[in-house]
Amino acid sequence: MDKQLTRRSLSLGLPLSMGLLHLANDAIAAENSAAKDAGPSTKPKIGMLIYNDMILLDLAGPMTVLALAMSEIHLVAKNRSPVRSDVGIVIQPTTTFDECPGDLDVLFVPGGLAGTIAAMNDDATLAFVSDRGARAKWVTSVCTGALVLGAAGLLRGYKATSHWYVRDLLPIMGAEVSDERVVIDRNRITAGGVTAGIDFGLQIAAILRGDDYARRIQLTLEYDPKPPFSSGSPGAAGPELVRDVLERRAKVLAEARVAATNAANRSPK
Amino acid sequence: MDKQLTRRSLSLGLPLSMGLLHLANDAIAAENSAAKDAGPSTKPKIGMLIYNDMILLDLAGPMTVLALAMSEIHLVAKNRSPVRSDVGIVIQPTTTFDECPGDLDVLFVPGGLAGTIAAMNDDATLAFVSDRGARAKWVTSVCTGALVLGAAGLLRGYKATSHWYVRDLLPIMGAEVSDERVVIDRNRITAGGVTAGIDFGLQIAAILRGDDYARRIQLTLEYDPKPPFSSGSPGAAGPELVRDVLERRAKVLAEARVAATNAANRSPK
Repeated sequence: MDKQLTRRSLSLGLPLSMGLLHLANDAIAAENSAAKDAGPSTKPKIGMLIYNDMILLDLAGPMTVLALAMSEIHLVAKNRSPVRSDVGIVIQPTTTFDECPGDLDVLFVPGGLAGTIAAMNDDATLAFVSDRGARAKWVTSVCTGALVLGAAGLLRGYKATSHWYVRDLLPIMGAEVSDERVVIDRNRITAGGVTAGIDFGLQIAAILRGDDYARRIQLTLEYDPKPPFSSGSPGAAGPELVRDVLERRAKVLAEARVAATNAANRSPK
Repeated sequence: MDKQLTRRSLSLGLPLSMGLLHLANDAIAAENSAAKDAGPSTKPKIGMLIYNDMILLDLAGPMTVLALAMSEIHLVAKNRSPVRSDVGIVIQPTTTFDECPGDLDVLFVPGGLAGTIAAMNDDATLAFVSDRGARAKWVTSVCTGALVLGAAGLLRGYKATSHWYVRDLLPIMGAEVSDERVVIDRNRITAGGVTAGIDFGLQIAAILRGDDYARRIQLTLEYDPKPPFSSGSPGAAGPELVRDVLERRAKVLAEARVAATNAANRSPK
């Protein structure tokens, strides 16, 4: 088994404390051969912010697509302490704010509201996001991650979206809300809640590698969704379910509003 | 921040080597209050097999839904060595084959073809899957995970599906292929490749907690998919893309066929 894994493993050449981040899956190996077929292009550099309380699925969707798009993926945190996701799976950062490459092709921020609020209130996180965001080719988020971009001043004057239950906080930080699932305005790409990360992932893969490459990834992931219910948006779910979800989160949503207001007051207009 | 996390943390009471698996997300905390509202029902016990080379997204989709459905989730491996997923994120098992609860409500197997083949050839894995599968209320898989169920003899005489590129191996192990995205036959539930795990997750959540609960989870995850391309199934993608994906995986697909044939020859008819 180990030999088999090693044979299929692909090193991404990441500066890991725990050694290299190995992408061992045969699907990724197959995509690597596809990337090679496409010529000796350099791998796009992706910096993915990770933080305690983040939603694993917010990261796993885009990360899976971007791994299949043969990217150089950096999981960035303030320090190298393991990060705890919503479902309890712990993620080891591969680099730190200080050591992350300066010029990223893509800066990405996932969501997870309690953790998002902490990030919006953390100077070091905002400084990192603001610095890399000003230099990255693409500045992106899924779910409540957009609030971190907003708090770092990166959405001022841009159309954007976020998880539906915090979208109304974006204008506080100077963004104009759009209700598309994935919103592209110049080099800002923001996506809706959690599962929107897969749609976002395929869109950024198409930007980085072309439509045909993205189509092949979609087929590899068998992304032909068939939701068993039609309650995936506030409009489809209806007012009762929406009120129920909002009421159960009243406290944390109020904290997010305070964080957005504080961020708007802090940053230069 | 730590205080805030602790306040929101929910212990699932899992027998972890690294301490308890904390579900710290506010969304999960909110769902917990919903579960309490529904009465003092016990949490469904979920055993999720994890193994090297598995696809993180195969696990993250169903696990996120099941966490929101307030389940007791066990990440089960042969031993407590960390498991490396396709994207390089390492997952710590929470229990072992020996220590996993005997009577699970749900046994779940994710995919990841190189790892799936190793599992199909591993006696200890098959013994575990066969034992818990015979006793579990629901025997389930996503993606190539169905091949592990098949190799353990659990799909003989059942309709089932798997990732589209290995579906034709199911009949070797006595299953009848169905081309639905999520196939339910008596207590067997098998789903298609990778992203089908989210559709599966919502279906098993509805079974465990009721349709209204599953609808609220779908809204919480904003699962209103908008794939940017229509290449998520072999039929939609067309023969050229399909051939391309298959050719790049010819070797591992041939290995999977051998493993399926060996498994069929090994197990009693």
